[in-house]
Amino acid sequence: MRRDFAQWRQAVQAEMEATLLTFLPPASEPPARLHQAMHYAVLDGGKRVRPLLVYAAGELFDADAQSMARAAAAVEMIHAYSLVHDDMPCMDDDALRRGKPTVHKQFDEATALLVGDALQAQAFTILTQGNAEPARKVAMLSTLALASGSRGMCGGQAIDLAAVGQALSLAELEQMHKLKTGALLEAAVMLGALSGKTLLAAEVAALQAYSAAVGLAFQVVDDILDATADSATLGKTAGKDAANNKPTYVSHLGLEASQVLAEKLRLDAHRALLPFGDGAERLRELADLIVQRRT
Amino acid sequence: MRRDFAQWRQAVQAEMEATLLTFLPPASEPPARLHQAMHYAVLDGGKRVRPLLVYAAGELFDADAQSMARAAAAVEMIHAYSLVHDDMPCMDDDALRRGKPTVHKQFDEATALLVGDALQAQAFTILTQGNAEPARKVAMLSTLALASGSRGMCGGQAIDLAAVGQALSLAELEQMHKLKTGALLEAAVMLGALSGKTLLAAEVAALQAYSAAVGLAFQVVDDILDATADSATLGKTAGKDAANNKPTYVSHLGLEASQVLAEKLRLDAHRALLPFGDGAERLRELADLIVQRRT
Repeated sequence: MRRDFAQWRQAVQAEMEATLLTFLPPASEPPARLHQAMHYAVLDGGKRVRPLLVYAAGELFDADAQSMARAAAAVEMIHAYSLVHDDMPCMDDDALRRGKPTVHKQFDEATALLVGDALQAQAFTILTQGNAEPARKVAMLSTLALASGSRGMCGGQAIDLAAVGQALSLAELEQMHKLKTGALLEAAVMLGALSGKTLLAAEVAALQAYSAAVGLAFQVVDDILDATADSATLGKTAGKDAANNKPTYVSHLGLEASQVLAEKLRLDAHRALLPFGDGAERLRELADLIVQRRT
Repeated sequence: MRRDFAQWRQAVQAEMEATLLTFLPPASEPPARLHQAMHYAVLDGGKRVRPLLVYAAGELFDADAQSMARAAAAVEMIHAYSLVHDDMPCMDDDALRRGKPTVHKQFDEATALLVGDALQAQAFTILTQGNAEPARKVAMLSTLALASGSRGMCGGQAIDLAAVGQALSLAELEQMHKLKTGALLEAAVMLGALSGKTLLAAEVAALQAYSAAVGLAFQVVDDILDATADSATLGKTAGKDAANNKPTYVSHLGLEASQVLAEKLRLDAHRALLPFGDGAERLRELADLIVQRRT
């Protein structure tokens, strides 16, 4: 019998916690402070949206369980490293993340820098290992590396830095988020699909359309929550964008139009999945979760 | 006719400069400030010791030229990113590198952080591309990722951080440098060899013995130069280790015994290469260069 979405989600999250632990060096292994801080940054927190996308796409393509687990752990480590670096004083200078002190607050700045660097290397290490065909591994490594670099996540963060106090057009705001958040969310979907049977070009295009809608929706909802929720609910500092004079969908469109946009993107994501039929149920449910979440 | 070492070295360095430029996004491509800073961090500077090791080992194993160029560029980008992060205020807080202002001085701290992150991703991207067999690519990616992470370079830097003001034993000092500098130098040698014909186990062992000696020699000489040369000659701040109360070979053994050790390691490196005969001439010459350099 098919598990309902909440059960599936909890099962994936629990499996992810165990998998991430497996793919980190033990916290007691020297240099222990670095390894402890890597555990602190990665384990016991987060909604695991990217791993959920890996698993949802993987299930649609009959993915190998081991390969999916590696892919999910790798993309989550990239995400975790980006949060650690993003929170540092020279970037967003944030003290709270996932309801806990940020890594540079709990440890120190130099350790936070090295934690991020080492987690990035570890993410790629994970994808070189395991039983997948070498060509499949290379495709996964390429997908993740491109999504992480200056033409993906890091590029988006650079645009974000330059945008503080600037009047971005809506198109520029969208381009920033497409790189900053969208690239890694799309990589998660593609890594899940790459863990399974060979994709047709039309299937790749449909997954990209889904990812683009979900990626943008994720950021629109982030902006809405930053403007409307409190820090205790979010587990991170709320109201930060306005305080930092950062352009957001809410500052651009207003709250109501932002909510309408998020709902439109949710429906775009559903429409992109139509060719896949019932098999894409988890991906549809994730689009709903991303738009309807409260944290 | 075989070129002499100085000619060969200059040819490799010139080729490397062109190759690195090819493998970076154009400086004018948005986000332009990030891409400009990546160019600044990577191009026009450095002794290119790691690329030279890639080419020297590659020539010994009849390596494919394209594959060697990719390997050399990838390892040099990892090295360049580590320097950018290492120079940041929360780490060594240094203003001068390769005779120029460090990246966070020339640009800003947030850009320096992103430059390092993006260069790491770019290094892995480079190794996923090109015409090598997928299995060969995976071996190269694995070698570089392991050497870069918490069990390699990042781990060594974490030990280095923890060592400031501490009395390390000579064995602990050696372990620190084995990770901090040695891991990437060994990776350079192995990447060069992996660009060529399949290695026998005995050949891998001989290359590792060579790399271990050269890696340690490199650091002993770095410590000697830090204590004896001036900043203008080095192109980076001299006397930093003593000022930061960092344990070094010179503070441990004294200057003269450090020089004796460096010479012993040079001879160890030569001995490790004996099974390869004349083909290893470039690797021998590089061991000499590393020990006898003045900057």
